[in-house]
Amino acid sequence: MSKILVVLGSKSDEKYLESLEQVFKDFNVQYDIVISSAHRNPEKTATLAKNAKKNGYKVIIAGAGMAAHLPGVIASMTTLPVIGVPLPGSDLNGLDSLFSIVQMPGGVPVASMGIGKHGMKNAALFAVQILSLSNDILKEKYTTYKKNLAK
Amino acid sequence: MSKILVVLGSKSDEKYLESLEQVFKDFNVQYDIVISSAHRNPEKTATLAKNAKKNGYKVIIAGAGMAAHLPGVIASMTTLPVIGVPLPGSDLNGLDSLFSIVQMPGGVPVASMGIGKHGMKNAALFAVQILSLSNDILKEKYTTYKKNLAK
Amino acid sequence: MSKILVVLGSKSDEKYLESLEQVFKDFNVQYDIVISSAHRNPEKTATLAKNAKKNGYKVIIAGAGMAAHLPGVIASMTTLPVIGVPLPGSDLNGLDSLFSIVQMPGGVPVASMGIGKHGMKNAALFAVQILSLSNDILKEKYTTYKKNLAK
Amino acid sequence: MSKILVVLGSKSDEKYLESLEQVFKDFNVQYDIVISSAHRNPEKTATLAKNAKKNGYKVIIAGAGMAAHLPGVIASMTTLPVIGVPLPGSDLNGLDSLFSIVQMPGGVPVASMGIGKHGMKNAALFAVQILSLSNDILKEKYTTYKKNLAK
Amino acid sequence: MSKILVVLGSKSDEKYLESLEQVFKDFNVQYDIVISSAHRNPEKTATLAKNAKKNGYKVIIAGAGMAAHLPGVIASMTTLPVIGVPLPGSDLNGLDSLFSIVQMPGGVPVASMGIGKHGMKNAALFAVQILSLSNDILKEKYTTYKKNLAK
Amino acid sequence: MSKILVVLGSKSDEKYLESLEQVFKDFNVQYDIVISSAHRNPEKTATLAKNAKKNGYKVIIAGAGMAAHLPGVIASMTTLPVIGVPLPGSDLNGLDSLFSIVQMPGGVPVASMGIGKHGMKNAALFAVQILSLSNDILKEKYTTYKKNLAK
Amino acid sequence: MSKILVVLGSKSDEKYLESLEQVFKDFNVQYDIVISSAHRNPEKTATLAKNAKKNGYKVIIAGAGMAAHLPGVIASMTTLPVIGVPLPGSDLNGLDSLFSIVQMPGGVPVASMGIGKHGMKNAALFAVQILSLSNDILKEKYTTYKKNLAK
Amino acid sequence: MSKILVVLGSKSDEKYLESLEQVFKDFNVQYDIVISSAHRNPEKTATLAKNAKKNGYKVIIAGAGMAAHLPGVIASMTTLPVIGVPLPGSDLNGLDSLFSIVQMPGGVPVASMGIGKHGMKNAALFAVQILSLSNDILKEKYTTYKKNLAK
Repeated sequence: MSKILVVLGSKSDEKYLESLEQVFKDFNVQYDIVISSAHRNPEKTATLAKNAKKNGYKVIIAGAGMAAHLPGVIASMTTLPVIGVPLPGSDLNGLDSLFSIVQMPGGVPVASMGIGKHGMKNAALFAVQILSLSNDILKEKYTTYKKNLAK
Repeated sequence: MSKILVVLGSKSDEKYLESLEQVFKDFNVQYDIVISSAHRNPEKTATLAKNAKKNGYKVIIAGAGMAAHLPGVIASMTTLPVIGVPLPGSDLNGLDSLFSIVQMPGGVPVASMGIGKHGMKNAALFAVQILSLSNDILKEKYTTYKKNLAK
Repeated sequence: MSKILVVLGSKSDEKYLESLEQVFKDFNVQYDIVISSAHRNPEKTATLAKNAKKNGYKVIIAGAGMAAHLPGVIASMTTLPVIGVPLPGSDLNGLDSLFSIVQMPGGVPVASMGIGKHGMKNAALFAVQILSLSNDILKEKYTTYKKNLAK
Repeated sequence: MSKILVVLGSKSDEKYLESLEQVFKDFNVQYDIVISSAHRNPEKTATLAKNAKKNGYKVIIAGAGMAAHLPGVIASMTTLPVIGVPLPGSDLNGLDSLFSIVQMPGGVPVASMGIGKHGMKNAALFAVQILSLSNDILKEKYTTYKKNLAK
Repeated sequence: MSKILVVLGSKSDEKYLESLEQVFKDFNVQYDIVISSAHRNPEKTATLAKNAKKNGYKVIIAGAGMAAHLPGVIASMTTLPVIGVPLPGSDLNGLDSLFSIVQMPGGVPVASMGIGKHGMKNAALFAVQILSLSNDILKEKYTTYKKNLAK
Repeated sequence: MSKILVVLGSKSDEKYLESLEQVFKDFNVQYDIVISSAHRNPEKTATLAKNAKKNGYKVIIAGAGMAAHLPGVIASMTTLPVIGVPLPGSDLNGLDSLFSIVQMPGGVPVASMGIGKHGMKNAALFAVQILSLSNDILKEKYTTYKKNLAK
Repeated sequence: MSKILVVLGSKSDEKYLESLEQVFKDFNVQYDIVISSAHRNPEKTATLAKNAKKNGYKVIIAGAGMAAHLPGVIASMTTLPVIGVPLPGSDLNGLDSLFSIVQMPGGVPVASMGIGKHGMKNAALFAVQILSLSNDILKEKYTTYKKNLAK
Repeated sequence: MSKILVVLGSKSDEKYLESLEQVFKDFNVQYDIVISSAHRNPEKTATLAKNAKKNGYKVIIAGAGMAAHLPGVIASMTTLPVIGVPLPGSDLNGLDSLFSIVQMPGGVPVASMGIGKHGMKNAALFAVQILSLSNDILKEKYTTYKKNLAK
């Protein structure tokens, strides 16, 4: 069964997870949430990134604030698609984390979502879209979700 | 065979495609490039977006400048993953297109890459990563690509 | 009788409408307010935009936040003048919606007002100015309004 | 016959007029271009603004750079709809003129277009849309223009 | 006796005046405060500006928010030195008013202070510095003020 | 006779002086230009600032780029009015020098002009306005200048 | 024994010191905190800077808000390494102080930390890192700190 | 003998090194330059960072553009002081790399210099200042350098 790995740079970022978890529950997608700072715990982050594929994860979502290196650092150590979510909280309101996540140099992609809770929800939905490509049940559910969205 | 749909908002945006096409050639991934402005030709854009799945596309890459609505408009009409590439060229140097692409409201994800040619190259690589999840040949190639990157 | 169509991207944007409604009441201008997200409900938005003229609307006001595509999407599907109002609420305080609305490419104009409640009030006044061009009663009322403004 | 008044803050801004003039020629709309700085020649600007309606103008387009007060100053002295076009050229690339034009306080609307030549072209098209509301020939032409845009 | 004219774009801006008034009281400088919006009441503003010199004012301080045209508009109609104070309050936190005040085109100077209450206090001090050039009592007081500042 | 002291942070900033010198020549105002970096030569800068008044200067104009501390540093050491001119040239195009000059804390005013050559010209004109307050010949000349500006 | 000199531009900046003091206590590093505004008290600031080395300080940390000249001014008068901490509090949220601190011209380095309390904590840690280079006890402690960080 | 490790994210960044190398030559400081992208070659970067201390380096300078993670990634894996230099070249002119470098979370300091060549020169000087703390020859040279700077 496909799984999503969700990595947060800090325990305090858990407050942005609510809608992400709701999406995964609605779509019945398995996921794990791990707190691992790219800067304070680079070893743990590297281990997570390097083992993600063999641990059965298909997509990694990484959320971080300030100089948000987490998504890029993970992307540098895995071949799995990495979705980055810039989180606000600093005095620059997330513009710092947005630039740190989205402006990756050519060669190592990170897919950036919008800043904060909207971005976190969309990260979950985007991960579901990716899984749907090879999962007909999810594909059908997503089509239904999309129809209901309009109501 | 999986295919990628690349949509550009304007003919003049083709100058950013070079590395994207190189990536697809290197990975032997099929793709089509279509020019279709969200604003000047909404019907064509809607048709492209709505038919993309049934036409065999797995992922859509949309690049646009200024008030870059193209990726979001396409994402609103398809269940396929949409990757947006903000293009520079306006007086705001692509900050306008970045904000227009990345700040999607919760519910309709667009995966934003960085501004310009780096972003376009990464869009191609990210699409390959997505396809790799259900394609062992691509998976292997991507692992090789990743190893070579370090050299 | 001339009517104004007001479209909001989200129910939560209604809090910005107070002064707009007051303007329309003061000038005795008919208007309808519809919630229709460009991204969550593109079909409804397209129907609104395409039928606006035949439904007797003269001007469309569209307010939205974040990657605010609503005004541009509507403008792509109607020949009526479209006034866009960037709304705040995201972590970027409306700079994202301002850029998404005002930086339209050449060929498909959207008239942007300022961010938030000031912009919404001015959108109503600007719509009245447009209607005044072919309505002598409104023209006189606007001249009176303008004189009273100075007091 | 309806006429448009185009006011520029500086002689050097004429380089942005090419597509505006083309639009007016294509739609056979009469227009006058006047150079009048809000800051260097406030009397001339006031006279232009105050007499615009009685001189037969229906819409005013004002383009300026830097601290671009011209559209707002004109809007303060006329009941005609005023379209503002922020022009680049300063070290802030037009972000200064955009903020100076679009962020009008509630009560005195200015309709802002995008920065530079795209904005100038759209100002002309938006003026045509306004005139079209009470001019069936223009309305038809604009519908044709809109159809051709898609090609 | 020399007097300072303080003009505010809006009644709601009076909350920034406290330290300005304290400075004038400390230095025993006469001043008048007038509310006059450049946009809502251009006639009153023009009259104020044009008559300021003959009414005995030596320096004009103008504070405004959003598209803050007030200092520039006044400067266009007087030969007196005009000090502009950008006020916050909009969604852009005063960056809009700063750009609208400081980026005056060559030929019509406005001296910009910082955003908000610090700027308002400094406007008063700067006005005192100007008056001091031809007033020995003020000059001495300012020297004393400067010495006390260090304590 | 009144004199203006012009201080530049760097020899390379002299390219912005042309219109400033023209203004002073047109108004027959005496001035001296000194290169003195606040950072590389703090002693010289302090000496300049502290002796400016006794050396007969009435107003100080200070232009600098990047982290432009020069105007603020001078203002901290003199009671004369200090006009700051933010210069471009860095990768941030003068937004850095603008913020470094205009955002002075309450207590030590610096009057900021716009970025670059427009700002330098206006600094000269503003200095002339200040001198005019106690110089009838300059006052008359400035009135004439102002009238000619409109032509 | 090595000491750190901490200079703040304003008494009100003391609220950012908590984690800095904790770091110095944890590492048993001596430090002094002095309030000395670059603008209000340039003499005191100069004396501090010029005597810092002979007073036994090894590193200077300077924190300031708005047009934050303090670190640069100190750096211009000492050969000791100066660490600058941009503080928020103004309407520009510390972007003004960041630019004023980090964009030092070539020749006079200031090492900028991030905005606010994170930056202040990191300033303390960075100072410890510098001292560690010639202090084996600190070196060992820092290695331990680094290991604990990961937990 | 003390050595400095200079790491660049990309071969193309070598063009910013000229003044850095000049500084090291002038001060007779040993240094090594290595190209190692944090994203393309995380293993090499990790090895560099982890072994820097035992290889005799005292200070690390890391320069990178776009989402410039290099300094932060290195800082996460060493106890040596890390100086970061944001490099321009992207469409955001180095604002992206500045935010990515300077906004490090509390716990893992990176000392940011200004954007581009000025920053690179200052990084070298700052490294020399650090080394000077325990090297009397360098200390004397730096004092001489500082004196000459004023000329």
